[in-house]
Amino acid sequence: MEQLKNYFNKLVKLTDQEWADFQACLIKETHAKKAYLLEEGQKCDFIAFIEAGTFRFYHILDGEEIVTAFFFPGDFVTNYRSFLTDNPSDHHIQALQDAIIYKIHKKDLHALYDRYQSIERLGRLIAENLYLTITKRLDSFQHTSPEERYQELINRNSKLLQEVPQYMVASYIGVKPETLSRIRARK
Amino acid sequence: MEQLKNYFNKLVKLTDQEWADFQACLIKETHAKKAYLLEEGQKCDFIAFIEAGTFRFYHILDGEEIVTAFFFPGDFVTNYRSFLTDNPSDHHIQALQDAIIYKIHKKDLHALYDRYQSIERLGRLIAENLYLTITKRLDSFQHTSPEERYQELINRNSKLLQEVPQYMVASYIGVKPETLSRIRARK
Repeated sequence: MEQLKNYFNKLVKLTDQEWADFQACLIKETHAKKAYLLEEGQKCDFIAFIEAGTFRFYHILDGEEIVTAFFFPGDFVTNYRSFLTDNPSDHHIQALQDAIIYKIHKKDLHALYDRYQSIERLGRLIAENLYLTITKRLDSFQHTSPEERYQELINRNSKLLQEVPQYMVASYIGVKPETLSRIRARK
Repeated sequence: MEQLKNYFNKLVKLTDQEWADFQACLIKETHAKKAYLLEEGQKCDFIAFIEAGTFRFYHILDGEEIVTAFFFPGDFVTNYRSFLTDNPSDHHIQALQDAIIYKIHKKDLHALYDRYQSIERLGRLIAENLYLTITKRLDSFQHTSPEERYQELINRNSKLLQEVPQYMVASYIGVKPETLSRIRARK
């Protein structure tokens, strides 16, 4: 929870009252390894902050699992598109280890937006940050090599390969598992 | 200007005073066909609303122009990443016909955010909408065919091919101009 408070403080200074009201809306959840935080077809009505654990964001295409994102401690985990549009999720979100998260529901967040301009601003800054994250991912698909995508992932989480099966990392960077092995051998 | 006001009203109800203060920050600009609204290497310190005209968003890769987006009347035109981060733009923004836009500068927008919660909310909703736009583009690169990307573009602007040279459309959908001709012939 301290980690989340520090993150918020870097964006907007919240008063003690604002933080207390925000905190009152947070729901602490633990998810066992392999548990689903969200399944395809469900509406995503939450944003969660990861205290511990890694999640993958994936869908099934022609019978094959395609991993489009990983979420690590310190990240927000959500299907933000489903959260914003109320459309059903086109992805699963699954814990890859035992995880601890703090979840806030959409209706509670919207009530906080109505109540405090500072939290409305926080919502704007988080939306802007998620925009920047996704443009990086778009860039990465258009302009970087699998090696570079692998390196970016390692930069985000140095323990990646102890935590995430290699075939999922390969799927994310868009190569076959054998190619990932060769990339790793060259490093 | 009416069009922009209507768009805003769908997102947030602004009072007359709020709209008047917003409007006072808007700068009307006309750009001749082929003029640059932003060049690679410049910081993008504005968001503009397009009243008339089409713009392309492109960069040069290995000597080749790569078009990554088109902006049509009713869209916002900006390098939003550069706007948010203050980093130099990695793309050019060029008018493809004579254009009329309403521009707001970052410092003026931030002053309005400080002043009015409603405009802060507008900023959040616009950030969220731009997020949704870019996820669609990411999806489109990962999951759709050139035919589908072409169709999406036509849906956004039925006069596309009178306004935009065919080689730019081909670049955007990721095919050679000859392939685009074949796609058009099949339609």
